[in-house]
Amino acid sequence: MASSTQADGEGTFSAEQYFATQPPPPTLEQDIRRVREFAQQHVKEGRRVVLVTSGGTTVPLELNVVRFLDNFSAGTRGATSAEYFLNAGYAVIFMHRQFSLQPFSRHYSHSTHPFLDFLELDSAETEYSGEASSDATRISAKPSERKQLIEVLTAYKEVHKAGTLHTLTFVTVNDYLWLLRAVAQELSMLGRSSMYYLAAAVSDFFLPRQRMSEHKIQSGKGSLHIEMDQVPKILKPLVNEWTREGFVVSFKLETDASILIPKARAALARYGHQVVIGNDLHTRKYQVVFVSPISSHKRSASLAGNEEAYVESWLKIDPSTYPQKEIEEDIVEELVRLHDTWIGVE
Amino acid sequence: MASSTQADGEGTFSAEQYFATQPPPPTLEQDIRRVREFAQQHVKEGRRVVLVTSGGTTVPLELNVVRFLDNFSAGTRGATSAEYFLNAGYAVIFMHRQFSLQPFSRHYSHSTHPFLDFLELDSAETEYSGEASSDATRISAKPSERKQLIEVLTAYKEVHKAGTLHTLTFVTVNDYLWLLRAVAQELSMLGRSSMYYLAAAVSDFFLPRQRMSEHKIQSGKGSLHIEMDQVPKILKPLVNEWTREGFVVSFKLETDASILIPKARAALARYGHQVVIGNDLHTRKYQVVFVSPISSHKRSASLAGNEEAYVESWLKIDPSTYPQKEIEEDIVEELVRLHDTWIGVE
Repeated sequence: MASSTQADGEGTFSAEQYFATQPPPPTLEQDIRRVREFAQQHVKEGRRVVLVTSGGTTVPLELNVVRFLDNFSAGTRGATSAEYFLNAGYAVIFMHRQFSLQPFSRHYSHSTHPFLDFLELDSAETEYSGEASSDATRISAKPSERKQLIEVLTAYKEVHKAGTLHTLTFVTVNDYLWLLRAVAQELSMLGRSSMYYLAAAVSDFFLPRQRMSEHKIQSGKGSLHIEMDQVPKILKPLVNEWTREGFVVSFKLETDASILIPKARAALARYGHQVVIGNDLHTRKYQVVFVSPISSHKRSASLAGNEEAYVESWLKIDPSTYPQKEIEEDIVEELVRLHDTWIGVE
Repeated sequence: MASSTQADGEGTFSAEQYFATQPPPPTLEQDIRRVREFAQQHVKEGRRVVLVTSGGTTVPLELNVVRFLDNFSAGTRGATSAEYFLNAGYAVIFMHRQFSLQPFSRHYSHSTHPFLDFLELDSAETEYSGEASSDATRISAKPSERKQLIEVLTAYKEVHKAGTLHTLTFVTVNDYLWLLRAVAQELSMLGRSSMYYLAAAVSDFFLPRQRMSEHKIQSGKGSLHIEMDQVPKILKPLVNEWTREGFVVSFKLETDASILIPKARAALARYGHQVVIGNDLHTRKYQVVFVSPISSHKRSASLAGNEEAYVESWLKIDPSTYPQKEIEEDIVEELVRLHDTWIGVE
């Protein structure tokens, strides 16, 4: 299948070409109006704002979508980190894949820790059960679950009351790219007080709308052939155009540990942002590596991070302490420290 | 890319070739031992058993999986139907995609109806809050949510107490195929008292393990090419070999309504099972069509359903009554009636 004429003939789109040819999601304007109001409120209140992206993006193969390519991500890193950012006083825009994990409710996965298991009905009164007596029935939590539930619920209610968490959802890589650009343009009003924590697992490939099949691809005609184009490298315009002062943290997930650090350095050299957090698919809950240009660690940080000298530092937790101790607590603490330096408030 | 030598040269595997070349999931034996115990218990207690499959299957592109092809399905049909089968007295094996919707907890999606929103902390006592006072804190449900929560919780606890729900999970299409075969072989002991309600959205295509890339496919080398083989048509051996007496219901989801009924009839003619439930992606919550050979409606049902005469009947609900009224209630009621006929107990 020939590449789309908008691309360069090797299936590579620039960001400009991408946005000129792929349609925005229908709810974009409404979503962004809310982000703007959220950002304005927190600028006024003097709060820093972090955009946390989380979960995988899809690449639909059909316009009436039945099949899609996806990137593995439950959204644990993003949902967990969002809680620690809230705890550190940040206002959080949590931009996540629909149905991926979310802050607070992540503690109660329907598969691994279902809340229906730890809620109880008061048995004395439910002997006369049925709908009629529901006024008399008491709902309570199992003693073993009470403490954690009260903690989570208290934090959840406080965050909702303070209005420091704003949630946005995406499904496709196209939704993600349009939202990321629009959010970054809104957050540019925050200058150095904004942070980008780009933990979503974003597809490197996409199928231009112009080449998508309208209906479900029929089987029975032998094998399936898919040819996808490369998604534009969005960090470049993010850093150089959309948010020239934001503190930008990207993630690099690999399954081959030997290429992790070289790829992290190459990304910093190419895009000029502040931190790459590298992690390996199999050890990501217990260790990550921060790779950053020397300038990110100095008070006089320059805007262009094109240095050739990089600092690598590993954060590790003892796997036996997980999940009581979560590595995201340390990641966020370290990033807040680096963000202080970036802003110049150490 | 050349097709695997195990296939017929057009990327089509027979079920036998498939199972001879693709490895079983590591937990298969343990999973099946539990299914056997569950089936034995309910045979002893004279209960019918239905296998409900639910959710989409994945096709990983890498052995260390980062990217995969997926089929769209939240698992609503399967999770909802499982509740109505339980209510009708069936023992249910709920074989679902990890993290897809499940019976009971489906009412409390973390995205659309989060339980943290309707649990409350007793405010009088939590003024002295913090961890120390958690013994004194009361958890309760918002008045507007109490009635439904008590109903769902009561049904959930009763099902757990009765031991009539057994849950199995799959992720990949390979997990699904191996599990389906093994479960069917175990349920064959039930003869006509078993039902198969195959609501999962199963991929028509797969990537043979022999052609999978070990590590994450690297971008930066132009576009992505994927070529997949056809998944064997598993209904054929299911009906003809694994479970010669089970009552088999398959689903057909299309986005082009004009091909729905012809495809449903073709499937019945080809596989000889009892019912195809056809649904269109956009109207599936409000209407479905039952397509079945005439023999499924007669007391003297024959084992081979190769008749050329089919009955089509539409089930519809008024969209304005949803979600109070769920179409799965009517689907299950109709299937129980057809299953009665199949068993010969009308």
